[in-house]
Amino acid sequence: MSKRVKKIVCFGGGTGVSVVLSGLKKSPLDLTAIVTMFDSGGSSGKLKKELGILPLGDVRQCLVALSNEKNLAPLFRYRFEKGGLKGHNFGNLLIAAEIGATGNLNRAIEKIAKILDIKGKVVPVALEQADIVAILKNNKKIREEEKIINCPDVSKIGIKKLFLEPKIKANPKATSAIKNANLIIIAPGKFYTTILPIFLVKGIPEAVRKSRAKKVFVCNLMTQVGNTDGFSVKDFLTILEKYLGKNVINYVIFNTGKLSTKQVKEVRRVFPKADFVKYDKSLSKRKNFIGTDVVDRQIQKLNPADTLVKGANKRTMILHDSNKLAKILLKLCRR
Amino acid sequence: MSKRVKKIVCFGGGTGVSVVLSGLKKSPLDLTAIVTMFDSGGSSGKLKKELGILPLGDVRQCLVALSNEKNLAPLFRYRFEKGGLKGHNFGNLLIAAEIGATGNLNRAIEKIAKILDIKGKVVPVALEQADIVAILKNNKKIREEEKIINCPDVSKIGIKKLFLEPKIKANPKATSAIKNANLIIIAPGKFYTTILPIFLVKGIPEAVRKSRAKKVFVCNLMTQVGNTDGFSVKDFLTILEKYLGKNVINYVIFNTGKLSTKQVKEVRRVFPKADFVKYDKSLSKRKNFIGTDVVDRQIQKLNPADTLVKGANKRTMILHDSNKLAKILLKLCRR
Repeated sequence: MSKRVKKIVCFGGGTGVSVVLSGLKKSPLDLTAIVTMFDSGGSSGKLKKELGILPLGDVRQCLVALSNEKNLAPLFRYRFEKGGLKGHNFGNLLIAAEIGATGNLNRAIEKIAKILDIKGKVVPVALEQADIVAILKNNKKIREEEKIINCPDVSKIGIKKLFLEPKIKANPKATSAIKNANLIIIAPGKFYTTILPIFLVKGIPEAVRKSRAKKVFVCNLMTQVGNTDGFSVKDFLTILEKYLGKNVINYVIFNTGKLSTKQVKEVRRVFPKADFVKYDKSLSKRKNFIGTDVVDRQIQKLNPADTLVKGANKRTMILHDSNKLAKILLKLCRR
Repeated sequence: MSKRVKKIVCFGGGTGVSVVLSGLKKSPLDLTAIVTMFDSGGSSGKLKKELGILPLGDVRQCLVALSNEKNLAPLFRYRFEKGGLKGHNFGNLLIAAEIGATGNLNRAIEKIAKILDIKGKVVPVALEQADIVAILKNNKKIREEEKIINCPDVSKIGIKKLFLEPKIKANPKATSAIKNANLIIIAPGKFYTTILPIFLVKGIPEAVRKSRAKKVFVCNLMTQVGNTDGFSVKDFLTILEKYLGKNVINYVIFNTGKLSTKQVKEVRRVFPKADFVKYDKSLSKRKNFIGTDVVDRQIQKLNPADTLVKGANKRTMILHDSNKLAKILLKLCRR
C-alpha cells in the first residue's frame, strides 16, 4: 500500500455526497465532491430563475458536510420562514452573493471553501446551465428536474432516454479530479434527476472510463415513489451502465439491513409507497457486490420551513450510516 | 496614566461608528459600539417589515468595521442586483438568518461577532422596535425615519419635539457598557434619525449623565439637505444638549479642513445643497472645542445596487479621516 494520501472523488447530489463524505472526512484523504447541478425546484431553483445562476443547493450541502468551521456552517441549513425570503436557504444566499461578488462560480466556491474551512474540494460538474429531459417509452417528453420527480409515469411507463438540453461540457476541474483519483464513488441519490444527469455531461463518462481508479456504486436504500418503484439493485446498475458503460463499475455496495416496523410506518406517512431496494440473495456471494447493513437507524425529520420544495421532491428520510459506509470504502481504497 | 485597557463606547449609526472605530481598532482598547436601531427604509427596513425583526443595517456595518476576518466580511457589503433579492444586503440577510436560528438579537450578534472575529462589541441600543416621530414647529407630525429624512420641512420649519413611539427601554448591555466606559464618543451621522434617537431611548441619557467617562461629540462634516440645512457646530451641540442634558459633553471635535472645488462639485451632483457645517472662528480658542482638519479627501462612491434606499436617504459621500480622528480621541482618552 502506497503511503501517499489517497485521492477520492465522489459523485452525487447534496444529501448523498454529504453522507458519504462526512464519514470519509475523518480520515487523511484527498476528497473531491463532484456535484450535480440540475435542480429546478426549491430555493436553488428559485435563485436559478431569478438570478440566472446555476442551482446551488447540492454544492451548498457538500460544502457544509466537508466544513470544519463551527459558527457559520450550522447557519447554512437555516431557511427563512417569513416574507419575501420565505423558504430560501441561507447557504444558497451566501453562495449566490459570492457568485455575484466574484462573478465566477469556481472562484466563488473556492472562497466559500475558505470561509467554511472545508476539507477537500467541492466541484460543480458543469459551469453551464441545462435542463434534464426524459423521453418516456410512450414518447412523452418531460422537461426539468422537478417535473420528472413529480411524474409517476416515469415508474409506470419507464424512461426510454434521458438527456440534457442544451448539451453541456464538464467543468475542467471535475475531469482533472477524475483523472487523478484512486477511488471514484457514485453516491446514493435521486436516480434520474441527481445521479444519472452527472453522466450526461459531456466528458464525465469518458473521464470515468479512462480513469484507473476503482469505481464504486453505492446503491440507494429505498425506491423513489413515482420514479424507481420496484427497482432492484441490479435494475439500478443496469441503467447506470447504460449511460456510464458496461463493466466500468468495479464494486456495488447495497444495503441488507432493515428498519423496525415503527420506522417503516414513519417513512410511509410521508412517502406512502416507498420500499427498500430489492436484491437477489445470490448477489452477496459475488465478491464485487457488497451487501451489508449500511442503513442509519435515525430517521431524518423534514424541515417544515422547506416550503419551496414541492410534491414528491422531498428530502430523503432514510440515509446511509456514514461511518459504516466509510469503513467499507476505505477498505476498497486499500485493496 | 493607568495601564488598564481603556474602555471606549461609541454611539451612532453604521457609517459614523464604522469610521470612528476602524481608526481606533488598531490600538489596544476595549471598544463597544452602541448602535441606533430605527431604520425604516432600505434593505434593513424591508427585513423589518417582512420578518418583524429590528432594522440591522447599522449593526451590520459596525460588525464589519470591527472585523478581523478576511474572507466573509467583504461580502457583508454585497447587494443583490436582480430578482426577489434585489437591493438586499448580504450582511443583513446573515444577521436575519442568525436571529431566526437563535431567536434572540443579542445572541445572534454575539454569534456573528465570533464568525467575523471582531474586535470589541456591537450592541443595539434597544431590543424592541420603535418609530421615530417628529413634531414640527407648525405641529405637523412626521412618523418614521425615512419620511423624516425626506421631509424638507424639517429644515424649513424646524423640529419642536422628537420622540419614539412606543417608548422603549435601553438594552441592558448598552447601559452597562456606558457605566464602565472611560470615553464616550458620539459619532457623526444623520442627526435627527440616527444620532438623536439613541438619546430618546429610556435609560441611555441617564446612563451617559451618570457615567464618569469623558464625553466627546464628533460633529458632522456637512449639513444634511432637508434636515439640517444651515446648521453650525453650535446648533448641533445645542440640540444634542436638549436631549442629553446641558454640560454633559466635555469635548466637541469639528472639522476645519476643506475639499477641492472639484470634490465639492462631485458631492453636490448628488446632494445639490449640501454644505460644510459652519463654525464660529472663536470656537477653536476654547479648549473643549477641537477644530482641526479631520475630513477624508477620498470621496465615497454610491453603490448603484443600493436600490432599496430612496430619496434623500442616501449614503454619505464625505467621511471623517478615521486615523486622524483616532489620534485625537486617543489623546482625549489619556488626558
